[in-house]
Amino acid sequence: MNIVVQKFGGTSVRNLECMKQVLEKVMVPYEQGNKVIVVLSAMSGETNRLIALAKEWSKTPDLAEMDSLVSTGEQVSTALFTMLLKDKGIKARSLLGFQMPIKTNTAHSRARILDMGSDEIFSLLDKYDILVVAGFQGCTEEKRITTLGRGGSDTSAVAMAAAVNADVCEIYTDVPGVFTTDPNICSQARKLDTVSYDEMLEMASMGAKVLQIRSVEFAKKYNVKVHVRSTFSDEIGTFVTQEDKDMESVMVSGIAYDKDQARVTLAKVLDKPGVSATLFTPLAENGVLVDMIVQNPSRDGRTDMTFTIPRADLEITLEILDRIKDEMGAQEILYDQNVCKVSVIGVGMRNHSGVASKAFQALRDENINIMMISTSEIKITCLIEEKYTELAIRTLHNTFGLDKSGSVENML
Amino acid sequence: MNIVVQKFGGTSVRNLECMKQVLEKVMVPYEQGNKVIVVLSAMSGETNRLIALAKEWSKTPDLAEMDSLVSTGEQVSTALFTMLLKDKGIKARSLLGFQMPIKTNTAHSRARILDMGSDEIFSLLDKYDILVVAGFQGCTEEKRITTLGRGGSDTSAVAMAAAVNADVCEIYTDVPGVFTTDPNICSQARKLDTVSYDEMLEMASMGAKVLQIRSVEFAKKYNVKVHVRSTFSDEIGTFVTQEDKDMESVMVSGIAYDKDQARVTLAKVLDKPGVSATLFTPLAENGVLVDMIVQNPSRDGRTDMTFTIPRADLEITLEILDRIKDEMGAQEILYDQNVCKVSVIGVGMRNHSGVASKAFQALRDENINIMMISTSEIKITCLIEEKYTELAIRTLHNTFGLDKSGSVENML
Repeated sequence: MNIVVQKFGGTSVRNLECMKQVLEKVMVPYEQGNKVIVVLSAMSGETNRLIALAKEWSKTPDLAEMDSLVSTGEQVSTALFTMLLKDKGIKARSLLGFQMPIKTNTAHSRARILDMGSDEIFSLLDKYDILVVAGFQGCTEEKRITTLGRGGSDTSAVAMAAAVNADVCEIYTDVPGVFTTDPNICSQARKLDTVSYDEMLEMASMGAKVLQIRSVEFAKKYNVKVHVRSTFSDEIGTFVTQEDKDMESVMVSGIAYDKDQARVTLAKVLDKPGVSATLFTPLAENGVLVDMIVQNPSRDGRTDMTFTIPRADLEITLEILDRIKDEMGAQEILYDQNVCKVSVIGVGMRNHSGVASKAFQALRDENINIMMISTSEIKITCLIEEKYTELAIRTLHNTFGLDKSGSVENML
Repeated sequence: MNIVVQKFGGTSVRNLECMKQVLEKVMVPYEQGNKVIVVLSAMSGETNRLIALAKEWSKTPDLAEMDSLVSTGEQVSTALFTMLLKDKGIKARSLLGFQMPIKTNTAHSRARILDMGSDEIFSLLDKYDILVVAGFQGCTEEKRITTLGRGGSDTSAVAMAAAVNADVCEIYTDVPGVFTTDPNICSQARKLDTVSYDEMLEMASMGAKVLQIRSVEFAKKYNVKVHVRSTFSDEIGTFVTQEDKDMESVMVSGIAYDKDQARVTLAKVLDKPGVSATLFTPLAENGVLVDMIVQNPSRDGRTDMTFTIPRADLEITLEILDRIKDEMGAQEILYDQNVCKVSVIGVGMRNHSGVASKAFQALRDENINIMMISTSEIKITCLIEEKYTELAIRTLHNTFGLDKSGSVENML
């Protein structure tokens, strides 16, 4: 049994006309004799409408009820789309999170998939040629509805593909694929033919909105071949796959950025054991996601601790710091909202030296000051002033020859 | 454990303001220490919106998908209402058809409840003080969502009350109770304090919209005390209960009517065995609900067959008759859309003679011609010209003294 999984986002199913375009996409693998699993998001705007409704009813809506509420979005889109299939005489049915079931933990609004029940899906595929699966939703052991967080339909699709060992998991979206950088900023941005799971993870964590980060983790874990492509054309998109030799021959695959950042410094902290725990434990407890952390070598028994956080969390972070600053002996709290993270990403870095220094030089040549640096095996991230974002991206894109379609060969 | 079931219709939950009124109603039995099961319909207009959407997508929407679609209406209202309860710190949760589960057969769009799982409900009532149940929906053995037909939330509520042996099943609606007749037609219509299951069944089958007919059958079967009352006042409404001695002492409880009728006559049919089957089998197969049937004694081997149907089914009925009229040897097809059924209802008829003749006389005195008559143990129905509807109702209401609040005593 050859199985193709296709996922369509909210924009792709926003009205009847768009759903008919989706229908055409679905008919392609179906008419080739494949079984097709179609994963749908809610019609665009619907999830936001439901959230707004809940906010009218309660300032802090109960999360379990919120999940029951917003999951109706996908229930509506899957029912409507299946009606189109049934009208064509196709053996099809909609499939909700509780019906499969997609078992998750009980973390409402950001649940994690625990189990998919491959046997159940295979036995449904014996009876139906097309299954229309409600993305974004799952179900706890106690049959309560959960949701997987924003963009969770990507994860639903990849998890389905993993469960049935599908040939490919096609993620249809409103862009043609994964680009070397944001085409809105850099006109020379180029669509990538392939990108590795790790590179995609780094890009997603930097705020690239093409795929939900957990879906990429899932794809990597279960080795699902993901094909990111456009609903509105027939063009081949970008394959997200296991790393191969060719990929490693390319030093840099893309430039990512994230403007949604703020930098905070706790100045002249008493440098004694446990000081990091004192600082970061209350932040974690309040759900503040700390990213880059820099601690300077101590002088005179005091040190500066600097870190970055999502800009929306600045207020609560400052409140927390104010509470603990005396305990830490800190003499000052500094912060800056006008910052941006820019990252150079590529699995090839593992085998090529000099990527970092080349990036630093390029930024220096444009007089862009680097405020913080962090590195991973396949990524170099620099925190810079926000106003230099576009300049930095274009400069780095150019420096690593990402505009050249033959860059793979160039680097060999 | 004392349990109260309360059901609120779409008008009662149509927006936040109305839901807050519902909240007050729910707090009454809760604060008296009862466990409360609240059954909600979809916010008013929502079900129609979803049906219209489906009709845009497909001329003949798949019924299973339709059920999955429209059941979201109750999923939304129950989640929102539960948020209000949680905000007050009450141990509450929403409960969907598949969660209970409310097991039904597979007749999508008009499913029948098979089983309610009392044990599951009791164990939920150990953990929660208020359960907010999505009305109108159930779930098949194979976990597909079903709906119970228009007004199905009434049946959900009565079924819940039966399953947990609730003290009372309160049906909140936008009228104060069950009336002797339609107050819009007869200003002297009076709210009834009690009405028997059988009387309510006859009234519901005549188009009284207060309760879904199946909910009354359920209430009768499981002896559930139903209290029909208004969401918008504290007034006591009407109790629908088992018949008792007092009730039988009243000859007539109410006058009902149904304008949604058409009369069809197949004239001079060859009167041979099987002729009724030839006529009514194809009608039943096409879902036409035939009500009153009259067959005159045959003359010269030929007879006239007259019956009534819902007005909306007239077109298909005439098509079917046209196909079979030769087979039946019928010489003519006659029909009339301008007719109305008027019924006199009362369990007391069993013990009192003369009700029928009294009714016929009253209509004759107003020169209202009776076209067809049918009777049951507790009902006399006359088919009359539609234009006499209001006059007939007022006349009969007056004839049987229904305007007098002391009519129970009058009849003793």
